[in-house]
Amino acid sequence: MVSEHKTANANFESLLRIFTVPEGPDSTLTRIEEELSRNLNQFLREHIVAEEKPLKQIEKDFCDARIPDEPVFVSDHTQHLLDTLVAQSVHTASPSFIGHMTSALPYFMMPLSKIMIALNQNLVKIETSKAFTPLERQVLGMLHRLIYGNDDSFYQQWMHSAEHSLGAFCSGGTIANITALWVARNSALKADGDFHGVEKEGLFKAMRHYNYDGLAILVSERGHYSLKKAADVLGIGQDGLVLVRTDEHNRICPDDLQAKITELKARNIKPFAVVGVAGTTETGNIDPLQAIARICQQEQCHFHVDAAWGGATLMSGNYRHLLDGIELADSVTIDAHKQLYIPMGAGMVLFKDPHAMNSIEHHAQYILRKGSKDLGSHTLEGSRSGIAMLVYASMHIISRAGYELLIDQSIAKARYFADLIRAQADFELVSQPELCLLTYRYLPQQVKTAMHQADSSQRAQLNALLNELTKFIQKKQRETGKSFVSRTRLNPICWDKLDTIVFRVVLANPLTTNEILHSVLEEQREIATLAPLLMGRIERLTQQILA
Amino acid sequence: MVSEHKTANANFESLLRIFTVPEGPDSTLTRIEEELSRNLNQFLREHIVAEEKPLKQIEKDFCDARIPDEPVFVSDHTQHLLDTLVAQSVHTASPSFIGHMTSALPYFMMPLSKIMIALNQNLVKIETSKAFTPLERQVLGMLHRLIYGNDDSFYQQWMHSAEHSLGAFCSGGTIANITALWVARNSALKADGDFHGVEKEGLFKAMRHYNYDGLAILVSERGHYSLKKAADVLGIGQDGLVLVRTDEHNRICPDDLQAKITELKARNIKPFAVVGVAGTTETGNIDPLQAIARICQQEQCHFHVDAAWGGATLMSGNYRHLLDGIELADSVTIDAHKQLYIPMGAGMVLFKDPHAMNSIEHHAQYILRKGSKDLGSHTLEGSRSGIAMLVYASMHIISRAGYELLIDQSIAKARYFADLIRAQADFELVSQPELCLLTYRYLPQQVKTAMHQADSSQRAQLNALLNELTKFIQKKQRETGKSFVSRTRLNPICWDKLDTIVFRVVLANPLTTNEILHSVLEEQREIATLAPLLMGRIERLTQQILA
Repeated sequence: MVSEHKTANANFESLLRIFTVPEGPDSTLTRIEEELSRNLNQFLREHIVAEEKPLKQIEKDFCDARIPDEPVFVSDHTQHLLDTLVAQSVHTASPSFIGHMTSALPYFMMPLSKIMIALNQNLVKIETSKAFTPLERQVLGMLHRLIYGNDDSFYQQWMHSAEHSLGAFCSGGTIANITALWVARNSALKADGDFHGVEKEGLFKAMRHYNYDGLAILVSERGHYSLKKAADVLGIGQDGLVLVRTDEHNRICPDDLQAKITELKARNIKPFAVVGVAGTTETGNIDPLQAIARICQQEQCHFHVDAAWGGATLMSGNYRHLLDGIELADSVTIDAHKQLYIPMGAGMVLFKDPHAMNSIEHHAQYILRKGSKDLGSHTLEGSRSGIAMLVYASMHIISRAGYELLIDQSIAKARYFADLIRAQADFELVSQPELCLLTYRYLPQQVKTAMHQADSSQRAQLNALLNELTKFIQKKQRETGKSFVSRTRLNPICWDKLDTIVFRVVLANPLTTNEILHSVLEEQREIATLAPLLMGRIERLTQQILA
Repeated sequence: MVSEHKTANANFESLLRIFTVPEGPDSTLTRIEEELSRNLNQFLREHIVAEEKPLKQIEKDFCDARIPDEPVFVSDHTQHLLDTLVAQSVHTASPSFIGHMTSALPYFMMPLSKIMIALNQNLVKIETSKAFTPLERQVLGMLHRLIYGNDDSFYQQWMHSAEHSLGAFCSGGTIANITALWVARNSALKADGDFHGVEKEGLFKAMRHYNYDGLAILVSERGHYSLKKAADVLGIGQDGLVLVRTDEHNRICPDDLQAKITELKARNIKPFAVVGVAGTTETGNIDPLQAIARICQQEQCHFHVDAAWGGATLMSGNYRHLLDGIELADSVTIDAHKQLYIPMGAGMVLFKDPHAMNSIEHHAQYILRKGSKDLGSHTLEGSRSGIAMLVYASMHIISRAGYELLIDQSIAKARYFADLIRAQADFELVSQPELCLLTYRYLPQQVKTAMHQADSSQRAQLNALLNELTKFIQKKQRETGKSFVSRTRLNPICWDKLDTIVFRVVLANPLTTNEILHSVLEEQREIATLAPLLMGRIERLTQQILA
């Protein structure tokens, strides 16, 4: 018994070392970290295997649900992580990976993140975050001012007010959108007479009190899928997410929005929120925000703008006009981990009215006491990291001028790529870039002519084959690992709204060069030749149509 | 015009450097990072100012809502961060800060976090996370197995199944609890006949279809405040969160639970979920999970266990019996950023039934396509970081044996502190440690005697003065900066359930020594003498009662 105790104590002493003694300068982990600090791009190039390994095979390295009984050395495990995890991760920072919204990070993010992790603050309350709380409130103030442009006295009054909040930091745009619609729902069904508000009595009693037969959120057909989740979670139901028609530029049609609202009201369904999209996920287009704002004011709807992607455009004096009307929104979502180049996990929602979030305020005894400035009383999440610090640092180190350059260059690059695609006889630009996103597909000239001349049945048939081809090219290109574009499905008006699979390109990585864009097309053209059977079927149908 | 372009290009070239050229070895940021790597504890001790600066004064450094127009140098800004932010942050890793659930981190977390940030994966889909997706699935499998202990073939079948998910990573326990109750709500109000399910048609139609007058979630009086948020967000309403009586050990009374359920049903209110607490936030007590499970089975309620804090206890062969019955839960919340010693932002929810999460499954065109293994189809959040990597690494480097030691030592330390408090004539242990949490207050012997002899009015009066004293001591101790305990309000049965302010202590930091515990009491005793007026009033009332 005594010796057992002694062993336990000795083991504990050695365990304490992982809390008190850093890895030695020669340890694998320190070596890797230094390598990474010296040249991140080289580190990623050297350690991430380019060619794709089938997922089934990767899973073999991660198939044991048992928690190891005995410890392993840090260095051994680090090597294991390099071999199995890092090697098979995605090189999101690669300049030729232009298919998603995650791109390169500025170098200073890495050491600053380490400081953030080492401090391990919890932003839910001041007791575990102190200066991080005013810092986060300032960052929210900065984004609020970027959107709404109020004067200094406004921010003096509200930014650090205990009973108010100009917005909330969230893990991402989804939680930001849910938070905005939560606020909107609670405001639409607020306390009234005997009724104590939806937050207290729930949705069922709220509906009976207000005598509605349903609730609705309206958004364009191109709205983000997180809104469907929001409608589900908030008890509205996905059927309550009403999709509004878009025009040929993927922008909401205000007439259809108005018509849908009128129709809903006639059915005694309350349209309590309209979501304008500022940068659709698939094509980067921006809804006519002013027109939506006018309708929302008239109809007394909450007007939310999902600018998770496009919000950073406000940093550019040259392009912020694209988002005109955003200052009329009741709430706005912006993701700092997208075009503000912050690591994953930094979403925000901002509210025009400093009182708006009171409808979701909550308190608890041991924290978030009434009158405290704890941020946790106005967030959907509880414990949260101090990632606001990275946004704050970027605002100073990159500054507005730097972000303007980044935004402008991304848009310029997208326009360059659009022109390049247009200049190819065998590609079709499907959506033009408004921000730095565009979509296109491989479409040999003869096939294009056939698509135009075909009757509707032939066109659908040919289009289906083209979809298969686009899918094939996209997958093959990803597997080869030289470059990556994503794919999605659109319904272009010019092709009778047929389901059309397209390549989707996001040009936010400042390291992506024009040469890379040329070679992406070149590679796709080559890959097409690797599908002779499919190409043969496309050719035969083309001949048939043109005959 | 030409020269303007030239300038823009030159500026862009210099901006590109922040993406391509790391900080030099002599830069302030590199220097700080190295300092931090060499000796984290010293770094924190040297850079965090111990004595508290009033929040109002800290806010002065964070009062400008304007985004700077011009960039500043990385080094200059780093110095600014050290002076204004780091200096005024909270030393959460300090062994004498025993008031919150955020404590020291193992050293290897810092370099591993940096690799995680540098890889910047997005776990929402495989396209941006590849090997991180199977890794996260394995970590969920490990925690699932820790709770439910199924055999290998179970995990072989389900862990990597595209259409299933054993749980979800979340930013924290709040989102984990919301996710569990979202699943429970959707299952209770699932599609049935003409009705397409609450996720499609919303709560109002669901209630009419099932003919309920209300919904309820039951939890003990000591449940976490996030459940109130969950009830609000999910449209149940906070009134639908029904609080069940607890016994003298802060554990739910099964009889009262059963009585409340019966009463709800008599009112045609559907009790769709019961939450058992495994480690209450304030006192660390564990509900009788087996008894709750029996009631839930009988009443066909979803049984959720909020083990955000206590879940890690399952790692200890010596104490896992405290959570007996957790394996009967339909879902369990565990926070890895608590007793698994992971940096902030790593919550998890696990489901017994691999099909459970199908009720909240969602898909989108460009990602999360049906049949894909994208994790995003089963999470409330969208884009998410690869923090699962840190849990995975800890499971290997610390291992079950190491976690067992950590858990055991924390509980041993709490018992030691409890004995120490009991041995003092002038302190009162208010809640005994079941895990590593306890609460107590400063209560001189004579005052204690008076509390016992007082009539109920005098007792309430004296207790109110003691509350003021506890508050004073806690605040003063925090401000002085040598040590920190938190405070909360309990209603001890032995004091007629009077509102009682207590010191709350969490002993999870492996670096906290017995000496520190002694000096915490010593300091509190001394601080009490700094409130002579208040102490005078307490003494006079005591004399009056004892006279």
